Amino acid sequence: MSTGRLITIEGGEGVGKSTNVDLVRKCLESHGYDVLTTREPGGTPLAEEIRSVLLTPRDEEVDALAETLLIFAARAQHVARVVEPALRRGRWVLCERFTDSTFAYQSGGRGVDAQVVAQLAHLAHPGVRPDLTLYLDAPVATAMPRIVTRALDRFERERQQFFERVRRTYQLRASEHAHIVSIDASRDLQTVQRDIVNAVETFLSANEDA
Amino acid sequence: MSTGRLITIEGGEGVGKSTNVDLVRKCLESHGYDVLTTREPGGTPLAEEIRSVLLTPRDEEVDALAETLLIFAARAQHVARVVEPALRRGRWVLCERFTDSTFAYQSGGRGVDAQVVAQLAHLAHPGVRPDLTLYLDAPVATAMPRIVTRALDRFERERQQFFERVRRTYQLRASEHAHIVSIDASRDLQTVQRDIVNAVETFLSANEDA
Repeated sequence: MSTGRLITIEGGEGVGKSTNVDLVRKCLESHGYDVLTTREPGGTPLAEEIRSVLLTPRDEEVDALAETLLIFAARAQHVARVVEPALRRGRWVLCERFTDSTFAYQSGGRGVDAQVVAQLAHLAHPGVRPDLTLYLDAPVATAMPRIVTRALDRFERERQQFFERVRRTYQLRASEHAHIVSIDASRDLQTVQRDIVNAVETFLSANEDA
Repeated sequence: MSTGRLITIEGGEGVGKSTNVDLVRKCLESHGYDVLTTREPGGTPLAEEIRSVLLTPRDEEVDALAETLLIFAARAQHVARVVEPALRRGRWVLCERFTDSTFAYQSGGRGVDAQVVAQLAHLAHPGVRPDLTLYLDAPVATAMPRIVTRALDRFERERQQFFERVRRTYQLRASEHAHIVSIDASRDLQTVQRDIVNAVETFLSANEDA
């Protein structure tokens, strides 16, 4: 195997994605893999500028399709400049959020046709898809209070119904895609982290056997 | 006819697009039309932010597909928030640059597959296409010296070959699409403006007969 693997961490607001990126990185490194950690939207200076355009609360109503295209613009840049070059050099890429977020937020949350998201994914990063996705699942009422101490961005200001749709879309995708492992993130951190490590170890065993 | 018309002004750098927007607006208004003038990329606060992200010279190499997606994000917002609402209210929209620019610059100039641009146009503004496009054509060597007194943006810094490909793509599209009227903009301004007014008057006659 000369090329690396793409592992993504997904989930709604406050489920602990950032907290667990470091855990997964250490687990991969302990197996001898060279790991690049990154995040979306963002991951390059241009893509981080687009992230800021996306997250800034604003009076202007943002068209859902424009928002989706902005996210894929950032993703195309991130994939072309960071993710693909790293994978080609044999590095493993660990990314917080990727295209499953766009299905969950822009299709599930905002109502953009899932076929449109799929078409854009095909156009924007034809050769790149996650090999393993760790989906951290928690009821909206459990997860949201964890973020209320932050200054809320344009997405975090959405209503509970929006996040319920985001969660249902994640759950549906997890049930339909074998590369997505759903982890109940409403439990105590130690239990959640034990499951995350187990999911990564299972993936590594299968990957090393392949 | 209860809906308005979309008229676009296209062409390479320094051909006089901005100079002639006002001429076309006055011509339309003299016929009693209510005209909204706007421009791309831009036309809303969010889309103008995206314009600034696109035009700012930067060290980071910008992926051609990411650039194309950014332009369509700005366009989707502009169409949804400004162009479509105006057309629905019966206003005529006069726009400096639209999707023909994306075919010319991102496909012709940067090499993005024209089919990809066509697919994105279909996704980003399915119901909106120009009724008349005034394409101002001039040899690169004639037009470029007109802009050298400005601070050059990321596109204006491209090499002459890039602009030759942009021009050839515009010319090809003009030969293939009946709504595009090609005007030789290398001549003196008075002659160019006479041709522009003639093209607008011809369109209005046909439109009023329809």
